[in-house]
Amino acid sequence: MAKILDGKALSTLILGELKARIARLKRAPCVAFVLAGDNPASVAYVTKKGEAAASIGIQSRLEKLPANASEATLIATVQKLAVDKEVDGILVQAPLPAGVCPTNVFNAVPADKDVDGFSAHNLGLLAQDRPEAFVACTPLGVLELLRRNNIPIQGKHVVVIGRSLIVGRPLATLLGQREAWANATVTSANKETENLPALARSADILITATGHPELVKADWVKPGATVIDVGQCRVADATRKSGYRLCGDVDFDAVEKIAGAITPVPGGVGPMTIAMLMQNTVKAAELHQ
Amino acid sequence: MAKILDGKALSTLILGELKARIARLKRAPCVAFVLAGDNPASVAYVTKKGEAAASIGIQSRLEKLPANASEATLIATVQKLAVDKEVDGILVQAPLPAGVCPTNVFNAVPADKDVDGFSAHNLGLLAQDRPEAFVACTPLGVLELLRRNNIPIQGKHVVVIGRSLIVGRPLATLLGQREAWANATVTSANKETENLPALARSADILITATGHPELVKADWVKPGATVIDVGQCRVADATRKSGYRLCGDVDFDAVEKIAGAITPVPGGVGPMTIAMLMQNTVKAAELHQ
Repeated sequence: MAKILDGKALSTLILGELKARIARLKRAPCVAFVLAGDNPASVAYVTKKGEAAASIGIQSRLEKLPANASEATLIATVQKLAVDKEVDGILVQAPLPAGVCPTNVFNAVPADKDVDGFSAHNLGLLAQDRPEAFVACTPLGVLELLRRNNIPIQGKHVVVIGRSLIVGRPLATLLGQREAWANATVTSANKETENLPALARSADILITATGHPELVKADWVKPGATVIDVGQCRVADATRKSGYRLCGDVDFDAVEKIAGAITPVPGGVGPMTIAMLMQNTVKAAELHQ
Repeated sequence: MAKILDGKALSTLILGELKARIARLKRAPCVAFVLAGDNPASVAYVTKKGEAAASIGIQSRLEKLPANASEATLIATVQKLAVDKEVDGILVQAPLPAGVCPTNVFNAVPADKDVDGFSAHNLGLLAQDRPEAFVACTPLGVLELLRRNNIPIQGKHVVVIGRSLIVGRPLATLLGQREAWANATVTSANKETENLPALARSADILITATGHPELVKADWVKPGATVIDVGQCRVADATRKSGYRLCGDVDFDAVEKIAGAITPVPGGVGPMTIAMLMQNTVKAAELHQ
């Protein structure tokens, strides 16, 4: 049976480390969430992020906008927060209202408050191997999960399924950085990939971020490989009080028997993403002191 | 025998197309070259680029700096060109003097004059799939060489050996764009890659940009694969008047017998890079009209 990569326990450890960094700051860091509408998943994410912040002494602020907020309104809200000296980080919660271009909004976030790392400038700094880049939280969380579990990355073949701006693309760049903690050979796969199961089976580290429940089957995995499941779908489940359960991209029960290490859903990548948001907020606050 | 992908002929065709776009502009486009020192290869590149520009009615300007120019001097030169309304494009010729951080200089080039596409902002726009991104010339040239020779890219496995800011990294991103002309599955390999020959052999399109003469042997290539050689090393050769010959990353004579299509060196990617610099300059001039 695979080793379970426990993101919940690791995120608790990291939050504790951040608390010590926060204690050395002159004032408490502050992160602002911009939320348009009341999509239940988005509200739940923002709530969780606010709770994690509060638990370690990071202030948070919620800018609520109507579900039909325009691109101009979203950008104006970001610009107001951009010049607010009390705000260290700005996070625009996806998905954005229909008709709004996400990258137009993300690119309005100034580089030094871009704790989500989605702006063109930070994506470019990442591509330039520059350490001041703010890197997207899920990719950073995946890297930390691998590093702190001593899973070798350098020289290994990593297959990333999915090429979103938020996960797949920055993750591929991050793991291919010219650094001893990275230096992976990275394949970026997508919907059009031919022979995806065979490609996946060639991976030493298989990372999936597609949102297709249980896409990855046991015969997609090389025995002993590390499997990182970024998927988080809500699947209807009448036996749960909430009416749904979270389901990843991986057929966990079958793959767990083949893999060397695997993340659970929930309790794997999800908590790491939140911890990395806190880490980016502390990094921003350290810049702003 | 493989089909020879003739970059010289294709670049001539493209330069002709650009001439027609230039004829529709109100004034001639202008590209400025910043050159520190007199490294013979750098001088030769800048001269070639200037000649190509002149041949289609693009003006060029050379800002010559001493070989030991400081980072501050380079950045000041770029900033002077940035505010010059007659300059459409700025190219800082690498390699830069010892002690100068190349990305500090590249990031001083304003996005709309960044005809080399090396600034963080343009690298980020590329990662965001935004069409206004200025994309580095060699990656663009490789894409054009594939497209105009009707070599299928979508769904195919592309292996890129080398992850420089100038070629490997933007090329991997470009070929993985969410576009019908891209949509490749892209593996980015580097010095640390384990089993590189086997990985290379799995490629439908193998692109090498390492600067290691004749690194890629016949048994690295899947029969029928397309092989793109970005390497351009000067190897001493007493039989030539110049004292050297250009040598690519690929053992051409052996690989030509295996591959389905292959670029020669010289006459493959090199002329395409120059044509794409002209294309980027025309794109910038169209923005500035």
